[in-house]
Amino acid sequence: MIGERLVEDMTDAERERAQRVESVLPALRDAAEEADRTATFPTSHIALLREAGLLGLVVPEKFGGLGGTLRDLAAATYAMGTACPSTALAYFFHNTSASRGLLPLEAIDAGLFDEQEIPVVRAFAEKVLTRMADGIWLANFASESVKTSGANITIATTATKVDGGWILNGEKSFGCATGVADYYLTSAKLAGYDTAEGLATFFIPRDAPGVSVRAPWDGLGMRATANNGIRLENVYVADDEALGVPGAFTRMLTMSRGSFVGNQLAIAAVYTGCAQRVYDETLTATTNRKFADTGEPIASAPVHQVLFGEMTRQLETAYLWLRYQLAVETAEPPFKPKSEVFTQWRLGKGAVTEACFQVALGALKAGGTSAASMSGFAGRALRDLAMGLVMTFPAERGVLEVARIVTDARANELFATAPAEAVR
Amino acid sequence: MIGERLVEDMTDAERERAQRVESVLPALRDAAEEADRTATFPTSHIALLREAGLLGLVVPEKFGGLGGTLRDLAAATYAMGTACPSTALAYFFHNTSASRGLLPLEAIDAGLFDEQEIPVVRAFAEKVLTRMADGIWLANFASESVKTSGANITIATTATKVDGGWILNGEKSFGCATGVADYYLTSAKLAGYDTAEGLATFFIPRDAPGVSVRAPWDGLGMRATANNGIRLENVYVADDEALGVPGAFTRMLTMSRGSFVGNQLAIAAVYTGCAQRVYDETLTATTNRKFADTGEPIASAPVHQVLFGEMTRQLETAYLWLRYQLAVETAEPPFKPKSEVFTQWRLGKGAVTEACFQVALGALKAGGTSAASMSGFAGRALRDLAMGLVMTFPAERGVLEVARIVTDARANELFATAPAEAVR
Amino acid sequence: MIGERLVEDMTDAERERAQRVESVLPALRDAAEEADRTATFPTSHIALLREAGLLGLVVPEKFGGLGGTLRDLAAATYAMGTACPSTALAYFFHNTSASRGLLPLEAIDAGLFDEQEIPVVRAFAEKVLTRMADGIWLANFASESVKTSGANITIATTATKVDGGWILNGEKSFGCATGVADYYLTSAKLAGYDTAEGLATFFIPRDAPGVSVRAPWDGLGMRATANNGIRLENVYVADDEALGVPGAFTRMLTMSRGSFVGNQLAIAAVYTGCAQRVYDETLTATTNRKFADTGEPIASAPVHQVLFGEMTRQLETAYLWLRYQLAVETAEPPFKPKSEVFTQWRLGKGAVTEACFQVALGALKAGGTSAASMSGFAGRALRDLAMGLVMTFPAERGVLEVARIVTDARANELFATAPAEAVR
Amino acid sequence: MIGERLVEDMTDAERERAQRVESVLPALRDAAEEADRTATFPTSHIALLREAGLLGLVVPEKFGGLGGTLRDLAAATYAMGTACPSTALAYFFHNTSASRGLLPLEAIDAGLFDEQEIPVVRAFAEKVLTRMADGIWLANFASESVKTSGANITIATTATKVDGGWILNGEKSFGCATGVADYYLTSAKLAGYDTAEGLATFFIPRDAPGVSVRAPWDGLGMRATANNGIRLENVYVADDEALGVPGAFTRMLTMSRGSFVGNQLAIAAVYTGCAQRVYDETLTATTNRKFADTGEPIASAPVHQVLFGEMTRQLETAYLWLRYQLAVETAEPPFKPKSEVFTQWRLGKGAVTEACFQVALGALKAGGTSAASMSGFAGRALRDLAMGLVMTFPAERGVLEVARIVTDARANELFATAPAEAVR
Repeated sequence: MIGERLVEDMTDAERERAQRVESVLPALRDAAEEADRTATFPTSHIALLREAGLLGLVVPEKFGGLGGTLRDLAAATYAMGTACPSTALAYFFHNTSASRGLLPLEAIDAGLFDEQEIPVVRAFAEKVLTRMADGIWLANFASESVKTSGANITIATTATKVDGGWILNGEKSFGCATGVADYYLTSAKLAGYDTAEGLATFFIPRDAPGVSVRAPWDGLGMRATANNGIRLENVYVADDEALGVPGAFTRMLTMSRGSFVGNQLAIAAVYTGCAQRVYDETLTATTNRKFADTGEPIASAPVHQVLFGEMTRQLETAYLWLRYQLAVETAEPPFKPKSEVFTQWRLGKGAVTEACFQVALGALKAGGTSAASMSGFAGRALRDLAMGLVMTFPAERGVLEVARIVTDARANELFATAPAEAVR
Repeated sequence: MIGERLVEDMTDAERERAQRVESVLPALRDAAEEADRTATFPTSHIALLREAGLLGLVVPEKFGGLGGTLRDLAAATYAMGTACPSTALAYFFHNTSASRGLLPLEAIDAGLFDEQEIPVVRAFAEKVLTRMADGIWLANFASESVKTSGANITIATTATKVDGGWILNGEKSFGCATGVADYYLTSAKLAGYDTAEGLATFFIPRDAPGVSVRAPWDGLGMRATANNGIRLENVYVADDEALGVPGAFTRMLTMSRGSFVGNQLAIAAVYTGCAQRVYDETLTATTNRKFADTGEPIASAPVHQVLFGEMTRQLETAYLWLRYQLAVETAEPPFKPKSEVFTQWRLGKGAVTEACFQVALGALKAGGTSAASMSGFAGRALRDLAMGLVMTFPAERGVLEVARIVTDARANELFATAPAEAVR
Repeated sequence: MIGERLVEDMTDAERERAQRVESVLPALRDAAEEADRTATFPTSHIALLREAGLLGLVVPEKFGGLGGTLRDLAAATYAMGTACPSTALAYFFHNTSASRGLLPLEAIDAGLFDEQEIPVVRAFAEKVLTRMADGIWLANFASESVKTSGANITIATTATKVDGGWILNGEKSFGCATGVADYYLTSAKLAGYDTAEGLATFFIPRDAPGVSVRAPWDGLGMRATANNGIRLENVYVADDEALGVPGAFTRMLTMSRGSFVGNQLAIAAVYTGCAQRVYDETLTATTNRKFADTGEPIASAPVHQVLFGEMTRQLETAYLWLRYQLAVETAEPPFKPKSEVFTQWRLGKGAVTEACFQVALGALKAGGTSAASMSGFAGRALRDLAMGLVMTFPAERGVLEVARIVTDARANELFATAPAEAVR
Repeated sequence: MIGERLVEDMTDAERERAQRVESVLPALRDAAEEADRTATFPTSHIALLREAGLLGLVVPEKFGGLGGTLRDLAAATYAMGTACPSTALAYFFHNTSASRGLLPLEAIDAGLFDEQEIPVVRAFAEKVLTRMADGIWLANFASESVKTSGANITIATTATKVDGGWILNGEKSFGCATGVADYYLTSAKLAGYDTAEGLATFFIPRDAPGVSVRAPWDGLGMRATANNGIRLENVYVADDEALGVPGAFTRMLTMSRGSFVGNQLAIAAVYTGCAQRVYDETLTATTNRKFADTGEPIASAPVHQVLFGEMTRQLETAYLWLRYQLAVETAEPPFKPKSEVFTQWRLGKGAVTEACFQVALGALKAGGTSAASMSGFAGRALRDLAMGLVMTFPAERGVLEVARIVTDARANELFATAPAEAVR
């Protein structure tokens, strides 16, 4: 099972679910090059994944899903990443929608909602999960183009209360599966709120009146993710298709074990799968191809030895950060507080994606000018993995955030306890 | 003058020639994005450069050219690199054809040809130069796809003597200006020769019978260079369109001051121009764009400070290696023996292109996901500069070659003189 | 417990053993600076460790030891590395002597010795273990100064059979605890053998006739390890103090789960402890110290943020490689074949030690000129951690070995199965 | 001439002066190891350098000096750096004292002083220069231990006016040639001033009442520089031994072509000389030493090829930055404004010293454990070159400063001219 390269200690149940993933890989692999060339999400993949039951991979069995966890998701996106990174990424975003069902339910159990809120929250949460289990594709639209110095994501889309529902207006700059998903699960801020307290979540049917698709996104890589984004003009959403309880979003977030809604590492798994693939292809190509004079594989040349040594080291580095992140986000009982899980990811996200990109660079060099084409595996991997460098935040930003965290923590600690000489 | 950023001590004559380059840049800049998108060399550029007199830039005035040197060429390809790297690269390859005229003439002066050979060699050499001065575009076809462990380039194309001329057969894998140049200046080995002694040079008209263009080259970057390559099937070339004197090629090479025919650094200048451009664009974009909350430029964020610091350092590194290489290849009198010029380039080529690529990576990160598109300046620069990494040889190979050179030299020195304690 | 920073999932039994380690740390910490300055192993540490029972840490309980495993050893050397890296390293080498007892016993169980050999092998093995449990310090002398291109270690010391025992002659270039240990556990090759089959192991009492200590070793770092090495001139060792069964050494090695006799990662744990300490000290110092004008901690300056971000990333990198190596060498049942454990270590050794060294470099820079002293924590850590870079093999060598392994493996695979397109 | 490795285009006059440097190198080389071991500046070097006329190297001929420039100084400190980096550094600080003579004289010529000030300023300036020409060693004491967030150096030492002179009180944390120099040329702020306007310069005789030497400085490297620093308690300095004109210091600084008083690059030359030496020694050692089995030089092993390739690249990188800095600070006429010379040095200082340190690291690895000793050339170079990393400012700080400069410049430019699309 390809996913076991990442999740080395799969249980039998996990292996069974991974088998479903394995079954769709040949189709993904076959469609990948054309999908990249035309920057088109292959619509046949929707039925393919639905029929394999994979749209409900991380939905608990009691809601009709397969009962997988983040371990399954990471193994799945990793495996798909070896076949078609774009599909893997779009699939990830569908799955992360489950957090809008799972986290609110956990928050209810944790007593974070009152009696009046509970039925509303529960109904919405279960709707998210059952729809996913039923094979409905839920795109996840959060990103917008406004930047503020203090936050990673700034929401300007607004939801105004009207009778029986809400009116939404705004623009979502990125989001996989535009024009593909059945619903866009969309964040907006309730009119009258200025803080994250006002963030609410809405089901918007793909073809709802007022929804339009932005200009085609001509990405450098991950081109077949249908990542255009949408525009919302006076889009009406009925009350029971919304989670408009103020503070629901922020209370839900407190339940996640990782950054934001959690799961982020499964994106890094996509990149790692892609890196493993280009590594394998390059190794095969350069051991197959021989020097005309000596008959030795090109891979045996000193420069290729240097390149493969470095590629192997980088690939292994990606796995280490990714596996450890998976461990800290899934171990039961947890062995790190959420703040440390968060810090670890600030470093880990950059570490994984930079290492994967280095693998692609090594592959490019190992292949020489003849492999440096737009559609060849080295060229595609380089472009796909370049997206990993900028996704969410670049490595340099994560490193600076961690520096701030560790130095502030120590400064506070000193303040509280007088100059210490603590050796951890 | 843009080129003065690289060649800081231009003479007045050089500045005058650079003015011609400057005049064509707006047109190059305007056409660049579309040229990249469609992977097409803009044919209008041929007339543009011809009319500016630039096809004879490095041809001595006595043959009707502008009398420029490698300094002019580097300044020109650098400046064009800021506007359209593909055009700059194709233009470089035209200019490097001049070496087939200049070096043989130098070799004659150096007494490397005998009485019988001189008229043949001189006639061919002057034909190369006068054609260039007359505005004829000469593509330069050397590379082939066979690899041997001992050489950078392996020639398999053959030329067989027939009455009044030669018959050529073979395939050239890369070479800018396929279908664009007036002539393909082509290397082939004379039938019956096994060594570089047998290498000969031929003028092949673009539309000569038996010449066909290979499948379109879908490059990762430098896409508008018309880099398809050609196939030669029983192509006839008349005696006076060939330099078939055995050993002419190798004798000519001894006259160059740098690697191969010299000039290679002007390719690195293309990449440096490209890097300067993406640096400037990124700086402008991120100082123009403001944080919605603070009104401060995005460039002022700590992560952007780290990125710009590093980009500046890398860009400056590229200039240093490039300017020094230019100095050692053009200073009169020369202050380094050819062997050291060669060694310097083994390091320099990789150093310049790696540094330039790092600038593009920084630009990509500074721009975030929204700049990570196929056609944006960051995306284009990343792809164009990735080609620099694999062109001719990757940095890693150059570094290993230098290691071999320095350790062998010391081992020989020790052998000759007994254990020394020489401190240079 | 300090060791839990590395071994995050300690069992109660492990935590109990780690408590013994914890108890000796203050004394180690107090003596560290002077020990470094004078390049002297503090002899008081011998009694200290003996009385804490730590000389038998990894000896099974049935032989009188504490029953720890490699997990305990790594946690111990890590913790000691935070206090006195030199002591930690010397302590490591004592503990690795246990492999000369444990591996032969495993080899017996695996049926690798015949009836005649078993009693001899068992007696020697048990003697190693019971001596350690009894508080006897066993130095481990393998390294010699001859280099061959094919092997990491080349043994020239010889053992010649005489009546009732052996006569040893040779020189051991490195080996902690020279003049300190009770016995030197020494490798030598049996006269008449040319291969590793002839390697044998001998107990040599510290003060045996013919044993002399080489000139004091003035190491750059790890100075207090008593690493002088010994010279053996006609040293007599009785039969029952030797394991002279031909092939015993190589058969024993097949039982180890890691490189050589295993355990090597516990050296890397020493360096990681040292890196954690210098990180902590630097963080404390730069948060305690304030700018005279703003009153802000020096650690809050942009350059310190960059340095601490990078130091944190590097430190975390060291932990990841080290923890994973520990997992693959100790997990029950094993989840990687020995060949992969070996390959992992070829990368891991370099990755851990390079990362640790980068932490020291960051600390040096964060401290500025005033911290750049011979005896300050930054200066000491830099010197101690520099030793990690060269110990056994530098990172560059490990990476090249792995490149050879992966490319040869693929070449063989292709040979056996015809061009494959396997995606792992 | 060793210095020509750095200054490749020496004039005859420069070569003549360099010959004097060459003549002292054997003595420096012989004393270096012991000087490092004992952390003692060899007092015999004072007479040696004085008798070679080198204490007046950069003093104009009309004041009795040799008339050298920064080019001579860099060549000299580089050459001495190959022999004894500590002596080279101390010698640098003596020479930089000349700026206290040369810059005020230039400032007078530039009209920066009024009629009343000129005689005082000129008298002091000429005293500095004639003393140096006369063979008097002038230590240069500026650094103090207080840190402020806004400045590289913060002066707390005060000078209070008394009848006929000044009373100085304070402490100087670093400064080569403590207890060695004839005079300490010392900066202090005039009582009543808060800004750099109040900085004044004083000649303090080594044995003046109230001057004491701080505790011996136990540096990690550059140990033989007598870098202890001094304490001043009510030290009296007569008026004619002081330059107490307010603003003289800041006006003088405007005349320098580089950072601060200029000359800083000659410190980087010390490190580059040291790096060249350890490179040469390592190359000699590893080509001399052979593998016992193959007889091939150890330098021919793949890992050594990787190490030497990298070392060569790093060493060449150091030269490139250093030579370019020398060009921008000495070319006549200047081709860069002072602000760009400054910016270049912010990058260059770090680039040179990091590259040099990497050479030492490579040497350490190439030498293995046996070369990793305190006194061996690899160990000494590693320690000496580590000092370069922290001297003045670490590379990371220079890079951040440059980022601030380029982004602020662009932001200002945009502000003045409205969004531009300028391509340089």
